[in-house]
Amino acid sequence: MEAVRFELIKTCKQSGARLGKLHTPHGVIETPIFMPVGTQATVKSMTPEELKDIGSQIILSNTYHLYMRPGQEIIKKAGGLHKFMNWDKPILTDSGGFQVFSLGPLRKIHEEGVEFRSHLDGSKHFISPEKSIEIQNTLGSDIMMAFDECAPYPAERDYVKNSLERTTRWLKRCKEAHTNTEKQSLFGIVQGGMYKDLREQSAKEITDIELPGYAIGGLSVGEPKNVMYDVLEHTTPFLPKDKPRYLMGVGSPDDLIEGVIRGVDMFDCVLPTRIARNGTAMTSMGKVVVRNATYQEDFTPLDPNCDCYTCRNYSRAYLRHLVKTNEILGARLLTIHNLYFLLSLMEKVREAIKEDRLLDFRKEFFSNYGYEI
Amino acid sequence: MEAVRFELIKTCKQSGARLGKLHTPHGVIETPIFMPVGTQATVKSMTPEELKDIGSQIILSNTYHLYMRPGQEIIKKAGGLHKFMNWDKPILTDSGGFQVFSLGPLRKIHEEGVEFRSHLDGSKHFISPEKSIEIQNTLGSDIMMAFDECAPYPAERDYVKNSLERTTRWLKRCKEAHTNTEKQSLFGIVQGGMYKDLREQSAKEITDIELPGYAIGGLSVGEPKNVMYDVLEHTTPFLPKDKPRYLMGVGSPDDLIEGVIRGVDMFDCVLPTRIARNGTAMTSMGKVVVRNATYQEDFTPLDPNCDCYTCRNYSRAYLRHLVKTNEILGARLLTIHNLYFLLSLMEKVREAIKEDRLLDFRKEFFSNYGYEI
Repeated sequence: MEAVRFELIKTCKQSGARLGKLHTPHGVIETPIFMPVGTQATVKSMTPEELKDIGSQIILSNTYHLYMRPGQEIIKKAGGLHKFMNWDKPILTDSGGFQVFSLGPLRKIHEEGVEFRSHLDGSKHFISPEKSIEIQNTLGSDIMMAFDECAPYPAERDYVKNSLERTTRWLKRCKEAHTNTEKQSLFGIVQGGMYKDLREQSAKEITDIELPGYAIGGLSVGEPKNVMYDVLEHTTPFLPKDKPRYLMGVGSPDDLIEGVIRGVDMFDCVLPTRIARNGTAMTSMGKVVVRNATYQEDFTPLDPNCDCYTCRNYSRAYLRHLVKTNEILGARLLTIHNLYFLLSLMEKVREAIKEDRLLDFRKEFFSNYGYEI
Repeated sequence: MEAVRFELIKTCKQSGARLGKLHTPHGVIETPIFMPVGTQATVKSMTPEELKDIGSQIILSNTYHLYMRPGQEIIKKAGGLHKFMNWDKPILTDSGGFQVFSLGPLRKIHEEGVEFRSHLDGSKHFISPEKSIEIQNTLGSDIMMAFDECAPYPAERDYVKNSLERTTRWLKRCKEAHTNTEKQSLFGIVQGGMYKDLREQSAKEITDIELPGYAIGGLSVGEPKNVMYDVLEHTTPFLPKDKPRYLMGVGSPDDLIEGVIRGVDMFDCVLPTRIARNGTAMTSMGKVVVRNATYQEDFTPLDPNCDCYTCRNYSRAYLRHLVKTNEILGARLLTIHNLYFLLSLMEKVREAIKEDRLLDFRKEFFSNYGYEI
């Protein structure tokens, strides 16, 4: 039996959004869900217990980064990534493709795979679909992602077409290489850039390969939001209804809501954790840049509508002091808040789907958030 | 009534070390005790709850740093330091003297006080004994320290004598300036460098001024350990038995034990938290430099004899990975461990005093710790 199995619970009568459950070897995930990113075997600044406390059901980790440091051998000897980092809930690992392609001049694409130099020490490496699966097998993630190319934006049609077709060929090789199907599941990735017909082509090619889940890659790469929503709207209809759909690298509050309405079940993004370490909070009234002088003597919580640990215990003035003095606790408290904000947003979204009122919820949310729809 | 009151419970028959209780407006502290340092209104990387979980009874914070950032006014408006940082247990604040004197060429000493330039923006400031008390009154710490000069090491006898006599004059002015005695207590500081007769002179002058506690400053400033122990041994006998004795800036495991045996009740030091952020752990077998390649595939805990959160859940290999990749969680986990190590060491020391076997305990401790006595 496949390690990961999706159960579609219902569809929102108002919006068409999906409510589901994803059964994995490390527990059941309620969808739609946001997945915090733990790039280097740690969600930056957080302990596993804190992640659970704020409602994280699954985290994402990075094959490329873990392959570089600490390396495959050490995680193998540790008994896999779950044990190494002390996280007993589900893990999704990306394939390393996105990171390797981001290396720009440091990498060279062949049909066989990608040759690249380490961003750390310049050492030479080669990752192929087979190698990516081998590493992900060692990591022992519940969900493994196919080794794909995320085409840059903007990109010529010919480039994108060639690239997506190679991604399909690579997916076949990934599936071939992956034999540990009872403990780990492989998801394919639809590409096609901003070309709707190429999205259709890719979605058909990718879903022709029978897998327990499919992702949409290559969005939120610099294109305007309306383009992303438009492409998304023309991609999800080509994905099977009985499989989970994962929109990669997307994590702003508005994009999560818009994505769910367009039929997406899973999201991940470094945004909430990255901006937290920069001193920016996501709140129900929009962004709060804690560093701003406005908050110097503001003894109210970050978000008056939030009941996270940070908002229950600390003032904006104290958080500003921590951020201005580069204190680790500042990064921690903002990370807790931002992740809690997105995770509880998704909880409210699930609630709204249950009650067939997701469009109403979107309207309410955006009226506070200060965003026009 | 004085805000802070010391109760001497007993003296160890084997070592002469003291067991006591320090009653403060924010609770009772069992002594001997180590006080974690929260320089900028945060013990670096730790939440207040985590500090309590590992047994912190009191923390120290820094007048100079808080005066610079966020500034006196903001903490006043927040309702004091306890409220600002969300810590409801006792706080001790230093006077700012040590930091100001550390500024070297940036400061100038007058009888009236010290003129200095900010280490942050070069702006001009002036701190006098009266100003230090005023700031500490605003902070609302349970224990305030007198504004003193910590003479450098080495220093000429004449310099040290002049300096300690000024410190006495400054203490009188501090006491005069401090009227909030029901909510905050002032401790005097004995100086005198490495000159035993000057230590005696200072101790007599300082303790002639009636106060609820006395500190020993100017040790652990670069002198050899045996010199420090020797000077300490010739200072504590001049301090009253019914008042707490605080050895400032001392916090290595061996120094804590040696200090307690020489009659000290309270200690503080940035050492455990600072070396933690550098990737060094204090363990029952001595220092562990986690970064070392030795620990690359070491899946045992930092200290097999420790039951802190870090040792119960993570391997040296994982901690090394976090330290090598500069992950915040690495600094956090090592800080938790190091503080727990010192706080539980002091708990064992208190237990040993109760049972009149502190010299035996010292012997056992050092036999594992790899330190000759």
